[in-house]
Amino acid sequence: MKKGFASDNNSGVHPAIFKSMEEVNTGHVVGYGDDQFTQKAIKVFKDKFGENTEIFFVFNGTGANVLSLSTVTQSFNSVICAETAHIQEDECGAPEKFTGCKLLPVDPVNGKLTPNAIQQHLTGFDFEHHSQPRVISISQVTEMGTVYQPKEIQELADLAHKNNMLLHMDGARIANAAISLGLDFRKFTVDCGVDILSFGGTKNGMMMGEAVLFFNRELTLNTKYIRKQSMQLYSKMRFVGAQFLAYFENDLWKETATHANKMAKLLESEIVKIPEIKITQPVNANGIFAIVPQEIIEPLQKRFFFYIWDDTKPEVRWMTSFDTTEQEILEFAAMIKKLLRK
Amino acid sequence: MKKGFASDNNSGVHPAIFKSMEEVNTGHVVGYGDDQFTQKAIKVFKDKFGENTEIFFVFNGTGANVLSLSTVTQSFNSVICAETAHIQEDECGAPEKFTGCKLLPVDPVNGKLTPNAIQQHLTGFDFEHHSQPRVISISQVTEMGTVYQPKEIQELADLAHKNNMLLHMDGARIANAAISLGLDFRKFTVDCGVDILSFGGTKNGMMMGEAVLFFNRELTLNTKYIRKQSMQLYSKMRFVGAQFLAYFENDLWKETATHANKMAKLLESEIVKIPEIKITQPVNANGIFAIVPQEIIEPLQKRFFFYIWDDTKPEVRWMTSFDTTEQEILEFAAMIKKLLRK
Amino acid sequence: MKKGFASDNNSGVHPAIFKSMEEVNTGHVVGYGDDQFTQKAIKVFKDKFGENTEIFFVFNGTGANVLSLSTVTQSFNSVICAETAHIQEDECGAPEKFTGCKLLPVDPVNGKLTPNAIQQHLTGFDFEHHSQPRVISISQVTEMGTVYQPKEIQELADLAHKNNMLLHMDGARIANAAISLGLDFRKFTVDCGVDILSFGGTKNGMMMGEAVLFFNRELTLNTKYIRKQSMQLYSKMRFVGAQFLAYFENDLWKETATHANKMAKLLESEIVKIPEIKITQPVNANGIFAIVPQEIIEPLQKRFFFYIWDDTKPEVRWMTSFDTTEQEILEFAAMIKKLLRK
Amino acid sequence: MKKGFASDNNSGVHPAIFKSMEEVNTGHVVGYGDDQFTQKAIKVFKDKFGENTEIFFVFNGTGANVLSLSTVTQSFNSVICAETAHIQEDECGAPEKFTGCKLLPVDPVNGKLTPNAIQQHLTGFDFEHHSQPRVISISQVTEMGTVYQPKEIQELADLAHKNNMLLHMDGARIANAAISLGLDFRKFTVDCGVDILSFGGTKNGMMMGEAVLFFNRELTLNTKYIRKQSMQLYSKMRFVGAQFLAYFENDLWKETATHANKMAKLLESEIVKIPEIKITQPVNANGIFAIVPQEIIEPLQKRFFFYIWDDTKPEVRWMTSFDTTEQEILEFAAMIKKLLRK
Repeated sequence: MKKGFASDNNSGVHPAIFKSMEEVNTGHVVGYGDDQFTQKAIKVFKDKFGENTEIFFVFNGTGANVLSLSTVTQSFNSVICAETAHIQEDECGAPEKFTGCKLLPVDPVNGKLTPNAIQQHLTGFDFEHHSQPRVISISQVTEMGTVYQPKEIQELADLAHKNNMLLHMDGARIANAAISLGLDFRKFTVDCGVDILSFGGTKNGMMMGEAVLFFNRELTLNTKYIRKQSMQLYSKMRFVGAQFLAYFENDLWKETATHANKMAKLLESEIVKIPEIKITQPVNANGIFAIVPQEIIEPLQKRFFFYIWDDTKPEVRWMTSFDTTEQEILEFAAMIKKLLRK
Repeated sequence: MKKGFASDNNSGVHPAIFKSMEEVNTGHVVGYGDDQFTQKAIKVFKDKFGENTEIFFVFNGTGANVLSLSTVTQSFNSVICAETAHIQEDECGAPEKFTGCKLLPVDPVNGKLTPNAIQQHLTGFDFEHHSQPRVISISQVTEMGTVYQPKEIQELADLAHKNNMLLHMDGARIANAAISLGLDFRKFTVDCGVDILSFGGTKNGMMMGEAVLFFNRELTLNTKYIRKQSMQLYSKMRFVGAQFLAYFENDLWKETATHANKMAKLLESEIVKIPEIKITQPVNANGIFAIVPQEIIEPLQKRFFFYIWDDTKPEVRWMTSFDTTEQEILEFAAMIKKLLRK
Repeated sequence: MKKGFASDNNSGVHPAIFKSMEEVNTGHVVGYGDDQFTQKAIKVFKDKFGENTEIFFVFNGTGANVLSLSTVTQSFNSVICAETAHIQEDECGAPEKFTGCKLLPVDPVNGKLTPNAIQQHLTGFDFEHHSQPRVISISQVTEMGTVYQPKEIQELADLAHKNNMLLHMDGARIANAAISLGLDFRKFTVDCGVDILSFGGTKNGMMMGEAVLFFNRELTLNTKYIRKQSMQLYSKMRFVGAQFLAYFENDLWKETATHANKMAKLLESEIVKIPEIKITQPVNANGIFAIVPQEIIEPLQKRFFFYIWDDTKPEVRWMTSFDTTEQEILEFAAMIKKLLRK
Repeated sequence: MKKGFASDNNSGVHPAIFKSMEEVNTGHVVGYGDDQFTQKAIKVFKDKFGENTEIFFVFNGTGANVLSLSTVTQSFNSVICAETAHIQEDECGAPEKFTGCKLLPVDPVNGKLTPNAIQQHLTGFDFEHHSQPRVISISQVTEMGTVYQPKEIQELADLAHKNNMLLHMDGARIANAAISLGLDFRKFTVDCGVDILSFGGTKNGMMMGEAVLFFNRELTLNTKYIRKQSMQLYSKMRFVGAQFLAYFENDLWKETATHANKMAKLLESEIVKIPEIKITQPVNANGIFAIVPQEIIEPLQKRFFFYIWDDTKPEVRWMTSFDTTEQEILEFAAMIKKLLRK
């Protein structure tokens, strides 16, 4: 089938991950995660993030975010996030529905929260009329394709902790961030004070399955019940465990994320040559945001599907994926040029 | 790995289903169900259940039940079900959490609801102090391994409709029921007045993915939002679509469910020869419930894992699966006999 | 207006309570409970129940029960109660909606729970598929007009605590219970191991306003937020404080509850003389349940309104109140006799 | 007790309203609103707002807002409101908790929403990943003491209706708005397209009790259940009915609200003479917002209590009430001057 730039979840499954699922597809194992494959995958996560990490597998990204937030909030809490955050814009209100909390959106800078911008919401502590701020939630990579530097994360974590709050990271594209930063996962998560991490795999070559990581065991006394009650406990869990095993084996995740990021950079290098197009965000990972002439959008979408981000400008989003090819990038760029030269 | 009789979800994935997923694992397709494979699978369901059926795929059985109930209730409603129902006993309160409704458990007869037993809860209509009854929910196969006859279902549907209520069927093991009854799916669902069906595949050879079927389109105006908000919308949906395509192709589901049921019957025929063991429920599908001498349980579980259902009697549950072999049944029966003769 | 036997909340407000509200109706006081009257009322409660008691005023009985349960549960918990409990039958699902918990109804004996009957639900601890039992909730007076003895309460508290659960008492008619037992409030609440008490006043002469008492301060760290979020924080709180001050002054509550109970006893003594009527529950407080000939119900209701409890028998409920008069009881009994002699 | 300018709910109850409650305090009436006083009060509302109005009494303002929103939303909806709205800032997340909806705050102009500012949130219709916009909620008087003109309301209503949404008005201070506009209630509510109105009385001389008005009967099929489930159904409802009867009799509400507004104007006229103080919002009703020198706040609060609105400026809020006297205003202004001259 034809590939486009709509989303990194329009891709399929990396063959090595598929193979790993096939290998565990034999005989019976106990359900719901007590099997050896899931347990092995949990061990790999602990190796990467530290022994005190508690890991809970779920089905999808929304499930991961909701489990993260539900575990550490009560309904009278609030969660501060970017206006562009997935939890604010793209989960149809799942966080509010499931946690009962208030989400407090902040106008972000290049998709990022800053301590300064958050400050307005750090009020009303101990005042019973006011939802009590409990979590700052950031996305790494952000929804605008940018990547937080460790120092930026540490500052947000410090701000959170100073206010008896927690820092959650929505890592749906955390692999792309790690490659972008050139850092091990833990260097910009637990080591920077992140308390809870939604660790995504689906957008980087897995079939389904995300992991929620808590870096403080005491937070997780009830997480297993919350996971079950939030419909995120998978019976044949071995097939998520097997995927993560393949994902981490021989650093497969690095290979796929490196490639996706490289393809975005290649696309960027082609686009900057085109004066009619204005890239609007730093290209830090595998997404490009650009303002393009209205007239080329539709013909371009017919051959390479992608989404319009903001139709008032109009701004589009182009996502690359682990299976995007150089050839496709070049064809895409060529087609843009051709459409503009008409 | 060693197989046991713990649950039909301890099995893996049928090879034909695995192959089907592999075949669709190429190129990009649009996410969240607008791909051709998912659409084809939806068409197959419509062929089987009627053109007016609306189909929504979800991740798992709890998700299917919650989506079913959420779509047709408001929080001031109540849902009548058996005390043994999965929604009452095994979903950690997901239905209450997500719908806000009250569940009204009824003491079942062999796992089944009867109009008579339900009558006690058909009160308080229009009385604002009382949760308003809205759904009767039954499981087919029941959690006790028994199967409703079409006439029994029709009576419950009539009772529901007479009271402006709906009939929901939790069909986590609906394939086993169809084989047991020797009937097409629709003959004991939509044709008997069932309004909503959780159609399960995971327990009969799929990897994951269930379908929620609504037989009245008007009920589903908002279901897509509810699915997303309940964290049950899968991005790479083609891999559920592909599974259902294989599941129905050449009636694979019949083959697997027939086998599982046959294995249960074989086990039953062996067990009835053992006077120390008392089978407690009619063996209609792929589960056997039996009271067994306490002393054999632990040694038996070491070789063939299974769950104790009620440790006061003690009553155990033995589930067969699509991959259970005759050999395993015979070994299991032999081991029981041997343990008893000690 | 004509008085009947429908409910003790059909009565108005005791004049002394009215007067107390009038006395505080002068000038400005700070809202939401920080005024001197509310604080004084809190002190009176502490005098009666102990210094470690935390008191939260709310608007009504359903609000009191929901605040009680919300404070000590998470959504994956369950609450065990009688099938006849107000939280199960008469709050339109408010507890489920607000707490997300599962309510587990138990068939009561004369409206009462027993350790034996509860046992069936004390299962599935630590099992993530199962709602975790957290609260046993009893009503004192029960909805069937009976009163728990201190020993019965202690046994339920012990059972709860042994299972790391809590005992909640819905004391909508706690004054009538205290009079019936001849005991101070604390003797059959905190002294018997009750952890949380919904203390009602409306049914015994107040206008509105109930108190939720927690006998363990550590439970209440977040109660103030939950009260506000559950829409139960009253701005002009002084008018609840003032009512409770009058309620306790010179033991007004004793006078009113004693009278109501006495009227019920008087009615009982008249009814037992009538062979056509069968009293079905011990008359411990201010309610009488009786099976009466169908044909007298309607004419009787026209003069003295009351509710049919169970129209299959038919069983009726007659409630007396602080303002019921001897004259009314005698007229009522006379009218019954007259109707039966027709 | 000493009066201040903290809030109009720090005042007590108007004597005529008190008297009305006293007058109905006789004999028994049926509970929960089926009594003659409540029914009479409902009739008065219908006279004022039209025969098609459906009226539901509740305990307090948060209850009124939550009942308004719950009746017309499902959990996948969103509600657009000002950042300063009571539902956003002062209800501890009750709307999110009870409706499950997302609240979308908009930066207001003088506390008011404008069609232009709302536009950003009118996106994602029919897109299942996005909370579906359903309600625009405005406050009249706004939380900043300003009053919407009928034309402004009509524009918001038109915008809402064009998008298949509804317009809700939080009328906690609707009497002050009516006086400010010199218009009958209906002229700037139902006649301008408002669909749902939280009609407040507590802040204008009542003890407790608000009314929720729906101007389209079809919206209210389930409202009675939602009111009960949201713990807002009052048993001795006659005491709310009686208050509203007095409130409307001889236009008592006009007298009280006119006085409160007049006092605010008097205070404004005094304050504008003081150059060190800057009034920050138009004084349309009974509240004044002003930036004042930090050093006078504390000594001033000791004699006349009030709240700091924004301690960074610092901005304070002064509310007048039906029982504020000219004398108090003049003393307050004099004290300010004296403190500044020190």
